[in-house]
Amino acid sequence: MGQGGLVPGEGGPARVRLGDVGELGLIRRIRESAGARVARVRTGIGDDAAVLEPAPGALLLATTDLVIEHVHFRRATSSPADIGWKALAVNLSDIAAMGGVPRWALVGLAVPEGTDVDDVDRFYAGMREAGAPHGIAVVGGDTCAAPDGWVAAVTVLGEHVGSPRLRSAARPGHVVAVTGSLGRSTAGLRVLEAEPALGAAVPAAVARDLTAAHRRPIARVAEGQWLAAQPAVHAMMDLSDGLATDLGHVCRESGVGARVRADRVPVSEATRQAARALGEDVLGWAISGGEDYELLVALDAGEAARVAAGLLAATGTPLTLVGEITGPGEPMPIFVDERGTALAMGPGYEHFRPAGRRGG
Amino acid sequence: MGQGGLVPGEGGPARVRLGDVGELGLIRRIRESAGARVARVRTGIGDDAAVLEPAPGALLLATTDLVIEHVHFRRATSSPADIGWKALAVNLSDIAAMGGVPRWALVGLAVPEGTDVDDVDRFYAGMREAGAPHGIAVVGGDTCAAPDGWVAAVTVLGEHVGSPRLRSAARPGHVVAVTGSLGRSTAGLRVLEAEPALGAAVPAAVARDLTAAHRRPIARVAEGQWLAAQPAVHAMMDLSDGLATDLGHVCRESGVGARVRADRVPVSEATRQAARALGEDVLGWAISGGEDYELLVALDAGEAARVAAGLLAATGTPLTLVGEITGPGEPMPIFVDERGTALAMGPGYEHFRPAGRRGG
Repeated sequence: MGQGGLVPGEGGPARVRLGDVGELGLIRRIRESAGARVARVRTGIGDDAAVLEPAPGALLLATTDLVIEHVHFRRATSSPADIGWKALAVNLSDIAAMGGVPRWALVGLAVPEGTDVDDVDRFYAGMREAGAPHGIAVVGGDTCAAPDGWVAAVTVLGEHVGSPRLRSAARPGHVVAVTGSLGRSTAGLRVLEAEPALGAAVPAAVARDLTAAHRRPIARVAEGQWLAAQPAVHAMMDLSDGLATDLGHVCRESGVGARVRADRVPVSEATRQAARALGEDVLGWAISGGEDYELLVALDAGEAARVAAGLLAATGTPLTLVGEITGPGEPMPIFVDERGTALAMGPGYEHFRPAGRRGG
Repeated sequence: MGQGGLVPGEGGPARVRLGDVGELGLIRRIRESAGARVARVRTGIGDDAAVLEPAPGALLLATTDLVIEHVHFRRATSSPADIGWKALAVNLSDIAAMGGVPRWALVGLAVPEGTDVDDVDRFYAGMREAGAPHGIAVVGGDTCAAPDGWVAAVTVLGEHVGSPRLRSAARPGHVVAVTGSLGRSTAGLRVLEAEPALGAAVPAAVARDLTAAHRRPIARVAEGQWLAAQPAVHAMMDLSDGLATDLGHVCRESGVGARVRADRVPVSEATRQAARALGEDVLGWAISGGEDYELLVALDAGEAARVAAGLLAATGTPLTLVGEITGPGEPMPIFVDERGTALAMGPGYEHFRPAGRRGG
């Protein structure tokens, strides 16, 4: 039994709710409905950003993301400047995942009528702060009233000088690797939401590091460009929904499987400390927690060590080899322990899925 | 006295609410905060669309608009297909107002968790229907849960082969003209919201015409391209907030004033019939009602008749000469009757302004 108007009568046609289809099913429906290939669209729906050809030889990347109060953030734990930062950063991350150069942003912002104008200024200040290192220009937007809570819709346009790296280019035998460390954003959120008594057990410096990772994620823009310039790097995407879910996207788009050594997934010492203090499962955070905005790549096995060393030298960011792409027939990635035993691991955060179905 | 947290204590600093600044003031603040001119940004915040140069000689137009339930539409009077149509059409209209060719759309859609997936499909079907005549490709997007009501954030990218027409190019002596007829969308909304007894007085064919204008506005894409190809046409924008407000934008951006003959503002017979049946002021609808998505242009007086005849011949759409651009010093357009007497006429719908301040 469900709510009022959406419940079919007895014998009526069964209706499909978003909770049943999930975001993936929805994207598939939208992609199918978007129609045939269109001229000068190299890559449409289904990757981190669209790849367009506005002029011969010029590649334009375009991506859009919604950031919604009560869904993606709470005002209690994120300031207006944090919201502005994050609304831009999640889009910069999509451009980074293609190996592109972010250039221009358009911002749609809806806020409740009584909102303090200074808070709107702070939102834009946070956005400028996130965009400044990349020279992002806010070139347009729309502002209007919201009935309930903030809504930020940011579109970022970028350029690409080489070959954008897609989710669909992973092949059996490639090594799976991730930048930085995983689970920091989820750790930060858990620290912010912890009961005061429990939260007090987290050292202050640890809490600062992790809450910053949650509120002000840093898109791996330089890393994405460097990686996309390596012929050995084939597939790339950003980790917004968690390693399990996002590697699943790569597998589906590439028609391959993947096997990940859970013990090799990079987790920072701060994240471990927070998990211990809060009595939570750090591996669950690292594998199923979202919003880390690290990069996930599939690259040639023989070149992996060289690429990792090169990325570290060029950007200061580590690249950790965590697994391998396997043959087709395994739709979702498998996580194994050091003895090769498969671990039961649920998917990361997927919108529309009831919370009860989440793994971790 | 206002609500809780946003009210300053006695002696505290006075806070500015969005209702006091209005959308215009907000755009000004955002524009100032967006920083200095950036390379390859021809026109940034403040016009209908941004004008970018992704490659030498190639002009890219970009615009984004939010369409929010309870603010821009009600589910009771707009179907999901209508919402999809309108969310795209308002962006096509922005591209049309620059004289551009719309090409690609990115769609951010948030809907409540219990939403029927078929309704989401219908949203995209309505969007496809609005975009099909223009060959629009939906190339990307984001779908997520909304806590309360639908939110659609659509970005449209377009191209321009000549010189985009800006709001800032109106000069004293130019003639002010509008395409089509005004007030139809407001008339349609009033018909939809009328008490049944009152609404029954509106002939069915009239109601159909006007409610369609409200639910499924048609962007003047071909008209915008034709007009932008005329050297006599200098400034152009689309009428989304009503003639009084939008002509005010042109005046402010161009540093000029404007005088409009209210009796020359084109109003359809259906709109007049609905106003009579509902006992409302048709001139108020035409001048202060928004969402008509007709084009407003400032053009050379000596060429105006020729341009109007040419547009009619090329597209079937009339262009009506309604007034003239005057010298600086008059910040808002003046509406006069046939004897030249100024009419008291309030501004159109501006977001964040308390309803009590609306004119009409």
